[in-house]
Amino acid sequence: MESNCIFCKIVKKEIPTHVLYENAKYLCFLDINPVTRGHALVIPKRHSHDILECTPEDRDGLLEVVMKVAPAILKGVNAVSFNIGINTGKPAGQSVFHTHMHIIPRTEKDQLPNWSSNPAHAKELHRIREKILPFL
Amino acid sequence: MESNCIFCKIVKKEIPTHVLYENAKYLCFLDINPVTRGHALVIPKRHSHDILECTPEDRDGLLEVVMKVAPAILKGVNAVSFNIGINTGKPAGQSVFHTHMHIIPRTEKDQLPNWSSNPAHAKELHRIREKILPFL
Repeated sequence: MESNCIFCKIVKKEIPTHVLYENAKYLCFLDINPVTRGHALVIPKRHSHDILECTPEDRDGLLEVVMKVAPAILKGVNAVSFNIGINTGKPAGQSVFHTHMHIIPRTEKDQLPNWSSNPAHAKELHRIREKILPFL
Repeated sequence: MESNCIFCKIVKKEIPTHVLYENAKYLCFLDINPVTRGHALVIPKRHSHDILECTPEDRDGLLEVVMKVAPAILKGVNAVSFNIGINTGKPAGQSVFHTHMHIIPRTEKDQLPNWSSNPAHAKELHRIREKILPFL
């Protein structure tokens, strides 16, 4: 536990929250700053700064909890679709530095902008691959 | 394997791709329509329409592969931060219906718009929680 971490305080029930699901290792609660209605977070109770520092045990059990809760959220808010994701680092939008996965219900009318992508040239992909492979 | 699935064809090497990592159960390759430089996908080789239909075994091993590859991608493309995520359903941006997780490297200058969020009233969160809980 980190004394200044807001999610550790939520785990310890020092801050009230809207819990959807809890077991020995994970907690799922509604985000107080939702992107869409029903936006929830799943966190390992054990503190880690981000997914890079999360223990393999906590990391590898995360999707089981996310996928237990997500269908219930969809039914509860009448959504048909959802994004799940983890933002790591400030440029990626991480604002609380305790590992968490977002569950964001989506509907056809929500008008959230999905990120645009552009076709890449095969030569450019080849160059990028060559830069990455030495680190694997 | 699904005969009309482009990712199954990639797994079977019927379509060339820029592979970053492969083991018996998973494949990681560069997205040909990248959101940012180094954008990669990790897929279970076994076909499933989306993460809701993915076997628990394939699902629960996904983050281990993602987190093996992500640090190498960051080093290779000089990024400091990244998003990982799964889009489920067309409104969420899913365009290929074979389970896949995105790894999207981020930098402070990439100008991708992180989704905006707004504080929710506690009463509203309470109402939403009450709608979801019966399904859990």
